[in-house]
Parts: sequence; C-alpha cells; structure tokens
Amino acid sequence: MTHPKSSRVAVIGLGIMGLPMAVNLLKAGFEVVGYNRTRAKAERLAEAGGQAAGSVADAVRGSDVVITVLPDSPDVAVTATGAEGVFANAEPDLIFVDMSTIAPATAIEVAEAGRIAGVRVLDAPVSGGEKGAIDGTLSIMVGGHPDDVEAAGPYLSAMGTVVHVGASGSGQTVKAANQLLTAGIIELVAEAVVFLEAYGVDAETAFKALGGGLAGSAVLERRAPDMLTRQFRPGFKASLHHKDLGIMMAAARDAGVIVPLGAVVTQLMASLVAQGNGNLDNTALLKLIEQLSGRAR
Amino acid sequence: MTHPKSSRVAVIGLGIMGLPMAVNLLKAGFEVVGYNRTRAKAERLAEAGGQAAGSVADAVRGSDVVITVLPDSPDVAVTATGAEGVFANAEPDLIFVDMSTIAPATAIEVAEAGRIAGVRVLDAPVSGGEKGAIDGTLSIMVGGHPDDVEAAGPYLSAMGTVVHVGASGSGQTVKAANQLLTAGIIELVAEAVVFLEAYGVDAETAFKALGGGLAGSAVLERRAPDMLTRQFRPGFKASLHHKDLGIMMAAARDAGVIVPLGAVVTQLMASLVAQGNGNLDNTALLKLIEQLSGRAR
Repeated sequence: MTHPKSSRVAVIGLGIMGLPMAVNLLKAGFEVVGYNRTRAKAERLAEAGGQAAGSVADAVRGSDVVITVLPDSPDVAVTATGAEGVFANAEPDLIFVDMSTIAPATAIEVAEAGRIAGVRVLDAPVSGGEKGAIDGTLSIMVGGHPDDVEAAGPYLSAMGTVVHVGASGSGQTVKAANQLLTAGIIELVAEAVVFLEAYGVDAETAFKALGGGLAGSAVLERRAPDMLTRQFRPGFKASLHHKDLGIMMAAARDAGVIVPLGAVVTQLMASLVAQGNGNLDNTALLKLIEQLSGRAR
Repeated sequence: MTHPKSSRVAVIGLGIMGLPMAVNLLKAGFEVVGYNRTRAKAERLAEAGGQAAGSVADAVRGSDVVITVLPDSPDVAVTATGAEGVFANAEPDLIFVDMSTIAPATAIEVAEAGRIAGVRVLDAPVSGGEKGAIDGTLSIMVGGHPDDVEAAGPYLSAMGTVVHVGASGSGQTVKAANQLLTAGIIELVAEAVVFLEAYGVDAETAFKALGGGLAGSAVLERRAPDMLTRQFRPGFKASLHHKDLGIMMAAARDAGVIVPLGAVVTQLMASLVAQGNGNLDNTALLKLIEQLSGRAR
C-alpha cells in the first residue's frame, strides 16, 4: 500500500463506527481530520493523533479524500450537497466515500450530484460492526466507477476488505440485501430456539446436529450461543437494524420486488423497537418470539 | 464397529432414501432384508446382495433391528403398531428405528406403544438428502433412550453421523427445526437474488462480498450457485419440503409456539407446490418470488 505522505483524509461522523475507522486511517499513516456535530468526539480523534475540525467545510478543504459515516440518508444528502457541505468545499479531483448505510436511491443521487460538481463519489457501506471497525476487518461493499474504487483502495484497505460490487448505489443495494439476510436468519434461529425449547430439546445439542448441514449459518455459529443464554448486549442494536430494514423495504418497494420474509422480519424488528428494546442486540428478536408464544422470561 | 455376524437388519421403505441406506448397511457387513410395497424396489436390494421380503412381517421376523424409511406419520404409525406390523412380529429386544420425517407427536406415540410391546424405539430422521444417503454421510438426529442409541450405533453409523439429541420425539423435533431453518434461508436468499438483480447488481459478486460475514450460510455457499443459473433439479423436492413444513407448523401450533417466518415460508412452499412445481428443487422458491415480483422468466 503506497500513498503520498501528504494524503489528507477527512472523516465526517465520529460515532461508534466512524471514530475507530478514522483511528485506523491514522494508524495506516494518513493525516486525518475529523468532524462531528458533538465536538467532544472530534477531540477524541485529536487525542489519537488526528485533528479536530470545527466545521464540515474546514474538514473538507485541503483533504484528498472525504469519508462520511453518518446515521441516515438525509444526513448524507445534506452533508454532501448542502451549501456548507462537501461538494461546495471540495478540492479538485476529490474522492468522496460515503460509508454510511443509506438508501440506494440517495446514493445514486449523491453520485450524480458529485459528477456535476467534479467530485468522484463512491458508496461504500460496511458490515462487521463495532468490532470490525476497531480491528480494521470490516467488509466494505463498494459501488462506483472502477478507477475511483482503485484510487480509494489504499484508504479503504486501512479499514477492512474491499469488494467492488458494481456501479453507484450497488454498495448500498448489497448492504440492504445483507441486512435482509442477517435479520431473517436471526429471526429463523429465534423461532427454532423457542420451538426446540418448548419440546424440551436442548437447543445447543440440536444446533450441533444441524450446524454442519444445509441449516448452518454464520448466525447459528456466532450469535446463537449468546441467544441461548439470553445475552442481548449489542453487538448491532435492534434500532439500527430497524432503520436498515426500512431502507431495504423502501428499496424493494421502489423496484417492485416482493420480499415476504423481509416484510415480516421488518415488522418484528419494528415491534422490538416499539416495545423499548431498540438498545438491545438485534438477536433480541428471540425475546419477541418468546413473548408472542407466551413464554416471556 | 463390532457386531455379531448374525445381525440381521430389516429396512422397510426402499425409496430414494431407503434403498441406498439399506445398501450401505449391506456394505457394512450386515445381513439386510428389505420390504417395499412396490416389490420391484425390494428386488433392487436383492441384486445388491440383500433379501427381498414379501411382507412387513416376513422382514421383521428374525431381524435384530428394524428400520423404517417411509413417507409420512400415518405410514409409520400403521407399519409400527398395525396388526400386521413391526411390533406384532417383533423378536424379543428388537430395536426399531424410524428414520422417516414425521410428526414429533407420532414419534412419541410410537415409542410409547413400543415400550408396551417390549420394543426399543428410536426416532432418527436424517438430513443430507439422496447424496448423503448414497455416500453414507447423512446427519442422523436421534431421539430415545441413551442405551438404545448406543445399541443402534453400529447400524446407524453405516449410514451417517449420529447425534443423540434427547428423549423420544427429539429427533423429529430437531428435524422440524432443520426444515424451518433451511426453507427460511432458501427463501431469504431467493428474496435477496431478486432484489439485487432488480437493481442490476451481479448477485454472485454480491454474495462473495456478503458470504464471509454474518449473512453467510450453507445455503448461500452450496445452493445459491444453482439458484443464480436457475437450475432447479432436485436435490430436495419442494413437495417433500412442503410436507415437512406442514409437520413443523402443526408441531409449533401444538406447543403454542409462534413462528412468523416459518408460517410465511410454509405458505410460499405450498404455493410453489400448488402451481405444479412440487417436483422442482426447494430452491425454486426463487421462481415464486420472481413471479410475485412480475419478473417471471
């Protein structure tokens, strides 16, 4: 991995994911300037050897690459295209990488606006959670032009493994599919746990018997142990998965794609959040199935 | 694996699964007598070195172990407990192993009837399909008394890997959970394929990006390639998975367990069968999602 010593990266959004991602860019030898609405978080980046910017404009000016890690579609749209935003303050040939999880349609709109502004735009949402962000082992699903993906490679590689999945918006489409699959499989495992336990079968033993076959999954392997002991510490919060499933459902609706299991698990995740469990891990879907089955603990 | 040279095993039901299972018992050195309602199938066992019996009673008399591999719950109940059946013709200390996929409640009833008749009963449904049956690599989920599981071990090991999952009925309960998980994950992958393709994203590339993360599953790894090229040769027929999901839903209902995704995928599999696609592989759920989304091929 080679890059000009002078490369400066701006990271906008220094939350649970953004801060450790920025720290990994620092560790890879880049100059990193961070901006966050809550200034204290930018100070934590400064303590790690980065710089705290006072505004988006300050962060963007003089940077070769700008990365956003923000909560939702409108945050990204405003930060990218707003009057005080990234494009308005972009250096020539800037690479803008949105690593938030947002609507594919918004990602495509932002890419189009970038093209007009002379900014090279990539959508690059991630999976792997807080642990992956800290360890630099995120899976990064990138949509955009191959030349831009290559140019962003050294920066993205500091945070995880890069897979170029298609044109602008594709990264978000793949992330939406990822969130459909993970929520659905967690829910299926939750249903299986309650079913097995209702019949007095030890679910751990059952999963050992099942796990090597076609019923096997990463959820069964990595998340079921905590589900069986009802450890719902996040991990990945139900409230965030709820947001992502909303994106997935809207995108499916826009494309006229019918997702029956996706629709049901979206409602179940919504119920989990509505009942005040949004801060629990997404595997707390198990609590909901126990409640529905009159087996609440 | 040691066993008396004189051990005789009866296999009742010599269909797609039963015949190769019986052949593997022959290969392991057991004397095997087979019975099938369609006599021609028993002749195929005779050609492989076994014996063809003219009735269930003929197969059972003189056998140390009786194995059933039958279509559904009533077949097993009648074959086990009927006037001309297994228990009525059992040698002392007979081990009866039902390897069909049937209702857990029926398995428990048969085990109870066996106890009264002095027959040691195990429920031991399998996963791994026709290929696993031929290769002797089935996953065998066994419910029953530990002593009986141990006694049946040499016979079952000739057909696959044995996991003792609990008391009588537990094997069937675990199998039902297996069928819930596999159907559900196939359906989720089908929804993801249609979603990705509707957005012009190459699903194969997307699945490479997803597969290593929490969205990964055996279905994604082993079945998605055929789904992407629309190869729906069974494999495991939709009609059989439909039957098994009926067992799962009835068992969930009996236990008061709510399985929202299980219920929806059961309906989708029923629709696949109702539309005349029961002979296709269960991954043909993808065809149904394409049809629902106005994207039928």
